[in-house]
Amino acid sequence: MPIISGKEISAQIREELKSEVEDLKSHGIHPCLAVVLVGKDPASEIYVRNKKRTCEKLGIRSIGYDLNEDTTQEKLEDLIQTLNRDSQVNGILCQFPLPGDLNEEYVILKIAPDKDVDGLHPMNAGLLAMGRPKFISCTPFGVLQLLKRSKCDTRGKHVVVLGRSNLVGRPVSALLSQKGLDATVTVCHSRTQNLKEMTKQADILIAAIGKPEFVTGDMVKEGAVVIDVGTNRVDDANHPKGYRLCGDVLFAEVEPKASKITPVPGGVGPMTIAMLMYNTVNAARIQNGLGPLTTS
Amino acid sequence: MPIISGKEISAQIREELKSEVEDLKSHGIHPCLAVVLVGKDPASEIYVRNKKRTCEKLGIRSIGYDLNEDTTQEKLEDLIQTLNRDSQVNGILCQFPLPGDLNEEYVILKIAPDKDVDGLHPMNAGLLAMGRPKFISCTPFGVLQLLKRSKCDTRGKHVVVLGRSNLVGRPVSALLSQKGLDATVTVCHSRTQNLKEMTKQADILIAAIGKPEFVTGDMVKEGAVVIDVGTNRVDDANHPKGYRLCGDVLFAEVEPKASKITPVPGGVGPMTIAMLMYNTVNAARIQNGLGPLTTS
Repeated sequence: MPIISGKEISAQIREELKSEVEDLKSHGIHPCLAVVLVGKDPASEIYVRNKKRTCEKLGIRSIGYDLNEDTTQEKLEDLIQTLNRDSQVNGILCQFPLPGDLNEEYVILKIAPDKDVDGLHPMNAGLLAMGRPKFISCTPFGVLQLLKRSKCDTRGKHVVVLGRSNLVGRPVSALLSQKGLDATVTVCHSRTQNLKEMTKQADILIAAIGKPEFVTGDMVKEGAVVIDVGTNRVDDANHPKGYRLCGDVLFAEVEPKASKITPVPGGVGPMTIAMLMYNTVNAARIQNGLGPLTTS
Repeated sequence: MPIISGKEISAQIREELKSEVEDLKSHGIHPCLAVVLVGKDPASEIYVRNKKRTCEKLGIRSIGYDLNEDTTQEKLEDLIQTLNRDSQVNGILCQFPLPGDLNEEYVILKIAPDKDVDGLHPMNAGLLAMGRPKFISCTPFGVLQLLKRSKCDTRGKHVVVLGRSNLVGRPVSALLSQKGLDATVTVCHSRTQNLKEMTKQADILIAAIGKPEFVTGDMVKEGAVVIDVGTNRVDDANHPKGYRLCGDVLFAEVEPKASKITPVPGGVGPMTIAMLMYNTVNAARIQNGLGPLTTS
């Protein structure tokens, strides 16, 4: 079976977390995620709703803070500070993008690194870069789990990462070249020369550049593992909604060459919320003096 | 001239810093570095002496704290905390390795990221990994300066880094793939398969694995730029001291193929102290509300 199903793997992780939460509760520990939403962006509202709903299914408490779009930076940061100090709250998630002139960077810096379950604080990026991650940001962590749980050994393999974003490209590169994972990692980006020469070398190709169907069949080595992080909307009059979702990989061309490949949707996407839940449960464990979760 | 002289380039940087320090002093700002040494390791004593001496030459104040080797972790961390709070102190350097059971990681975590002129705190590693560095750790920063000041353009070039240490390999990779520097970076290490295939692709090869003369001529592409971060002692009965210093690169074989190459000694080595001084001056500027230095 060449398809790596993020749907199935994320379901498996959620099941494991559900048991873990039950176990924690039986010891009087109730994992809790604070979810901060500013304004009324419809996409953000959907993301937030999904996150809260997943919390509920797993027995994790979620507390929503819905702020008006005219909230000031100061008020938002004050709320974060209050949540930092609230011992009932294990993890803090602030849904991005923020509306108007609100500064996301300052918000990230305000979140206590110990509660930064999104793994966006420089402290957590640094711990990851230094090979001793605490909270790995959710998308790179999801990519790692897809590889691990579909038995794709990374050791000694050449991983080529397309994209150098702070959300995906950079952390996933740091992660996979760590001791134990031991991949040889190349980071490519818009300025890379001879891109095809690079991507064709990849034993594992991770596409995270946000360009619809950018990776074509001729860019991929026969037998490569392909992880498609992209989620792009492209206009399509043949679809009832007038658009369709696609990844950064031209699936129809690449799938026949790949030994394993993630689809879009149903690949990396569903992993992100699962790993947010993982980080929240982990935060609850650590804050209660238990060791961190160890995932397979 | 194919040799990239760290001796000359570091001298140039020190001259620039000297002027900068004079300028700061004329505005009543006196950059100050606290240098903490624990125990009596002869090599560490030499390093510390050199650092203090360079401070002196540049007009930077240095304050030495020499602690006995039986200093406790608590006492050491208390000292760091006092230095964090001392507004006269702009930068804090604790010379590693620490003797006995003293924990270096805890010491690093104790240093205020704003005074971490060695760039070792996870917060600074994270800011670097995220493409907005504050204090870049001294060796990777030195490598960058060697490349820049010898007019080696990194944009679109394939940089292959040998080694994935937190001191060199990882930060230099994050640095060179940043926007503006724009290299395509591959990180190789002991688990890399087909290493030679990788290194032969390098437009710029950075060797930082700590294995004497590991990189041989057949591993290097004609015309490559080669930066040798290694400093190894190898026994040599023909040398008066009984040993000689060499890099990670077999210079005699690689130099004829390289378009530019750093020697050992006199390459990356002298850059390290220069960049420590740079970070200290920069810390003084930032802590006094001036913008960060911009280096060419």
